[in-house]
Amino acid sequence: MAPTTETQEAYPMKGGDGLTSYSQNSTYQRGVIDAAKDVIVRAVEEKLDLTNPNINSCTSFRIADYGCSTGPNTFFGMQNVVDAVELKYHSIQQSPPEFQVFFNDHVDNDFNILFKSIPPSGQYFAAGVPGSFYQRVLPKASVHFAHCSYALHWLSKVPKEIQDKTSPAWNKGKIHYTGVEKHVTKAYFVQFQKDMDIFLKSRAEELVGGGLMVLLLPGLPKGETLFSKTGAGMLHALLGASLMDLAKKGAINEDKVDSFNLPQYHPSVEDLEMVIEMNNCFSIESFGTLDHPMRHLPFDVKRTSAQVRAIMEAIVTDHFGSEILDQLFEIYTKKLTENYLVFEKEIRKDCDMFLVLKRKSN
Amino acid sequence: MAPTTETQEAYPMKGGDGLTSYSQNSTYQRGVIDAAKDVIVRAVEEKLDLTNPNINSCTSFRIADYGCSTGPNTFFGMQNVVDAVELKYHSIQQSPPEFQVFFNDHVDNDFNILFKSIPPSGQYFAAGVPGSFYQRVLPKASVHFAHCSYALHWLSKVPKEIQDKTSPAWNKGKIHYTGVEKHVTKAYFVQFQKDMDIFLKSRAEELVGGGLMVLLLPGLPKGETLFSKTGAGMLHALLGASLMDLAKKGAINEDKVDSFNLPQYHPSVEDLEMVIEMNNCFSIESFGTLDHPMRHLPFDVKRTSAQVRAIMEAIVTDHFGSEILDQLFEIYTKKLTENYLVFEKEIRKDCDMFLVLKRKSN
Repeated sequence: MAPTTETQEAYPMKGGDGLTSYSQNSTYQRGVIDAAKDVIVRAVEEKLDLTNPNINSCTSFRIADYGCSTGPNTFFGMQNVVDAVELKYHSIQQSPPEFQVFFNDHVDNDFNILFKSIPPSGQYFAAGVPGSFYQRVLPKASVHFAHCSYALHWLSKVPKEIQDKTSPAWNKGKIHYTGVEKHVTKAYFVQFQKDMDIFLKSRAEELVGGGLMVLLLPGLPKGETLFSKTGAGMLHALLGASLMDLAKKGAINEDKVDSFNLPQYHPSVEDLEMVIEMNNCFSIESFGTLDHPMRHLPFDVKRTSAQVRAIMEAIVTDHFGSEILDQLFEIYTKKLTENYLVFEKEIRKDCDMFLVLKRKSN
Repeated sequence: MAPTTETQEAYPMKGGDGLTSYSQNSTYQRGVIDAAKDVIVRAVEEKLDLTNPNINSCTSFRIADYGCSTGPNTFFGMQNVVDAVELKYHSIQQSPPEFQVFFNDHVDNDFNILFKSIPPSGQYFAAGVPGSFYQRVLPKASVHFAHCSYALHWLSKVPKEIQDKTSPAWNKGKIHYTGVEKHVTKAYFVQFQKDMDIFLKSRAEELVGGGLMVLLLPGLPKGETLFSKTGAGMLHALLGASLMDLAKKGAINEDKVDSFNLPQYHPSVEDLEMVIEMNNCFSIESFGTLDHPMRHLPFDVKRTSAQVRAIMEAIVTDHFGSEILDQLFEIYTKKLTENYLVFEKEIRKDCDMFLVLKRKSN
């Protein structure tokens, strides 16, 4: 009933708070969170029904952040939810209940750092919940507001066919899909469909009827069909090319690069709508893309390289060992520099999608 | 409303799972847990009222272990609670609800190790709750069964007077009370009263009316008035003497020993009854001492020294630095050997007390 073991792959963001840590290199995600504040405030204002007995009969209001990483973005996000719900209670002259926030992430996440960084506002009781969100992690009907930011584009695993030399989806010489090779792209999409369906089914059990869920994730810009034409697609392609350079130099084996693939999928609006409708547990209350100042900054090679390293270091180390990291990201930074104009002129910025879902009542 | 900062002193048990870790040196506590299994099973069987709407109207049964440390004892304890509650539901032909277990300890506790060691039974959803239990850590009326094993004898801090040279309670040359110096003992007792009252008030808010709480803690054997005549008292006195030896050798400053005191109190039955009655939120359903095989093992110098080190390493390091640890415990082991016969013949074994409390309904 409550699987607490994990079979999924887990590549936590780089822990600690050093210069190369995720917490020091997640300003882009912070931009997303800031822009998402309006989405959260409006969702609570317009879509949260405080007369719903699933909500007002509880002695506490429970919020869960799925895929929280180590902060600080999770704290900003959670604070936004708490503030918005408090405001709504005050607006109807009721004192808000106590809040409990569940911080969920893989068991390999650095919860010690997370717990030590919880802001001392005293506005909520904090709890850490270890386990992949591609399974149940909280009891039935125990969550009033769910939040998942920049986590759902991580698949539970690389699709099997991608690493199978006999399959038409074998992804030789690359580390991700580009959108050009149809078999590869389809294999990634099918994995996304499966994972997203498990995510939605699990959350449907955990949320109360009428409970809200805000999802933020990077997606394919509207009208775009090729992932390789987007910022993330280009960044991944150049990381793959940097690994191939290392292979050519003999620093790593080419087979090793062939067997390395990123477990990520950046869905289109249509992909998301389809999987949510098929799942049938949630109504789509609101859907759109976020705009935020970080999107309009000129392309910065150093910052981008550091950000990609903070995100990719764990997965690269797991496959190749940590010895190659410095050399790899030296080559990578060089490739980013060479492609500066491509990023500035030819590449479409990734699109930051938001969805506000409501758990249908049974 | 929900303070998440900590002002109390926190000396976590030694983390990790190495040879000197707490998890490898807590077999005595494991003996207590095994003996406590009967207490838990009987408490659930006889005192848990499944017809209570505070319990049967919930979609999940929530258990909290306050002061859980890193395991494995917390897992045995929690498993015993889950098994007993499941059994009770089956005995009335009802399927049990889902279980959620909250593992609480100081924010300095090694939650990463704790989370990685959770047994994969899948019988409950696990959550970690950082924060001293001498404050609120969970929302109002959110817990059905509370458990606290071998943690409540740790005070929130050393009583102030103990370290005040101008006070009659100044504890010069010792690191704990013995029971002989009345002012010192009283200062410790007053601190225990305050802490225990805060603990009971906090748990009274967190437990549902009719919810149960099992407390296990080391206490003064019945009829004994001097802590120095008990195993723990003697172990602490010898640790103090070992520190004084180090001071005489010039390895540490004697003032530093004077300002070092253990924040622990081992209450008598009467102490506990008094504070629970004055608090008035709980009824005492059952009260007694545990017997278990570990109590009857012959005194083992090496095992005892390793156990004391696992428990005291953090607090000693915090005050004196880690450089003295090896030398200190070498002297300590020697003193234990010299006092072998005292431990075997003259000293009264500590008493493992259990209490089953029920949250009074408002």
